[in-house]
Amino acid sequence: SSLEGTEKGHLNLAASETASHFITLLLAQFRKIHPGITFNLQIHNRKGLLNCLKSNQVDLVIMGQTPKDMDLISEPFMNNPLVIIGPGEQNSKLSGIKKLSELMEEQFVVREPGSGTRIAMERFFSAHKIQLNTSMEMPNNGAIKQAVSAGLGLGIVSLHTLQQELALDQIQVLNVKEMPIMRIWYIVHQKQKVISPAMEVFKQFVIKQTQPIWTKKYPFLLKHL
Amino acid sequence: SSLEGTEKGHLNLAASETASHFITLLLAQFRKIHPGITFNLQIHNRKGLLNCLKSNQVDLVIMGQTPKDMDLISEPFMNNPLVIIGPGEQNSKLSGIKKLSELMEEQFVVREPGSGTRIAMERFFSAHKIQLNTSMEMPNNGAIKQAVSAGLGLGIVSLHTLQQELALDQIQVLNVKEMPIMRIWYIVHQKQKVISPAMEVFKQFVIKQTQPIWTKKYPFLLKHL
Repeated sequence: SSLEGTEKGHLNLAASETASHFITLLLAQFRKIHPGITFNLQIHNRKGLLNCLKSNQVDLVIMGQTPKDMDLISEPFMNNPLVIIGPGEQNSKLSGIKKLSELMEEQFVVREPGSGTRIAMERFFSAHKIQLNTSMEMPNNGAIKQAVSAGLGLGIVSLHTLQQELALDQIQVLNVKEMPIMRIWYIVHQKQKVISPAMEVFKQFVIKQTQPIWTKKYPFLLKHL
Repeated sequence: SSLEGTEKGHLNLAASETASHFITLLLAQFRKIHPGITFNLQIHNRKGLLNCLKSNQVDLVIMGQTPKDMDLISEPFMNNPLVIIGPGEQNSKLSGIKKLSELMEEQFVVREPGSGTRIAMERFFSAHKIQLNTSMEMPNNGAIKQAVSAGLGLGIVSLHTLQQELALDQIQVLNVKEMPIMRIWYIVHQKQKVISPAMEVFKQFVIKQTQPIWTKKYPFLLKHL
C-alpha cells in the first residue's frame, strides 16, 4: 500500500551549517515516527548546496532563499531572523546601540563570501547605506560566536544558532531598530525530481513540524522572533 | 628597539575547527596585551591546514600532530583529550558503559575522513580491534554535538569543544576505561620560515598562556583532563 511506501526508504539530505542547528533535532524526532526511513545529511554553505542541487546529488535541501535562475521547487517553512550579537549581557555601551548608523563605529566578525548569511547581510547594509568594518572572517557560525563572545568584535548570525549562548549569557542580541534581517527557511528540490514517498513524508514533516519542535525545545527564542 | 618590533606586525594564522574553540579566547587576550599586532584567522580541517603550510600561505598553524614527512617546526602546548559523548545526563544505559567492546552495540556520528579527530579515532579503535557502527558523517563538531544531543548516536570529539554542552547538561562524557584518546595541540610553522618578532611573541604566548587562560575560563573541563 502507499502507506507502507512512506515507511521505508532512504533520503539524501543537505542543509546549510546554520540549518544544522535545528535539522538534527528534527531528524531525531522524524526517526522516532518513521524508523524505516534512513537518511544521510551533508552540511555545506550556500555555494555547496547549490552545487548539490545542480548535480542532483541530494533529494532535499534545507537552505535560505534559492536563486530564481534554477529549476527548483522551494517551500518556505520557518522564519530565519538574522540578529546582531555582542559579548555577554554586562556591556551597557552595546545594549545602548539602537540605530544602524551607530554600528559603523564597531568592528565585525563575518562569515566567508560564499555564505548565505554573508550575502543577506551585505545586501541589507548596502540598501541602508551602512558600511561595516570587518575585522575578521570566519568559515562557520561557531567560530563567529566564539570570537564575538571573546570580545573580538560584533557579529551577525541567525537566531537559530544562539540557543546555547543565550542560555549561558555568553552572547547578547543587540536591540537595533531595523533588525532582525528577516530571512526564510526553505525545503528545496529539483523540479524534475521524482518524488519518492519517503521524500514526500519528510517534506511535509519539515513544513509542519519544524517550528513547533524547535520553539518547544528552546522557548526563549520566541521573544526574538 | 627589539621590544618595539614585537609590538607591531601582522599575523596570518590558521587553526583546526576544534582549536577555534580556544583560539578565539586566546586571540582576544593577546590583542589586549599587543594591540599593535593585527591578525587574520583561517579555519580548516587537517587536510586544509597542511595545504596552508605547504603553500606557505600562513605564518603559524594551531593543529594536532603534524606529519613527519614535511619540513616543519611543531611545538606542543596543551593536551587534547578526545572523549566519547552521549546525550544529556539522564541516560543510565549510557553512563553504565565502561568497556570499549560495549561501544560496538552503539551507532556513532563521526567527522569527515579528512579530519584529524576522525583519523585519530580510527587509529585508536583499529589498534583496540573495535569496529564502530557509523550512522552519520558530519563536517564539523557543532553538527556532531547537535546530532548526539538530539539522540542520533554517540560521538567522539575533543573535550575542548564541549564547554557549553557540559554547562547546559546537553551532552555527557562516557566513562570508558581506555578513554580519553590523548592527543596534543601543536603550534606549527615551516622550518625555513623567517620568524618575525610578532610571530615569536605570539608563539611564546600560545605555548605559555593557552592552558592557563582556557582552564581559568572553563574550570569544569579540568576534571576530564
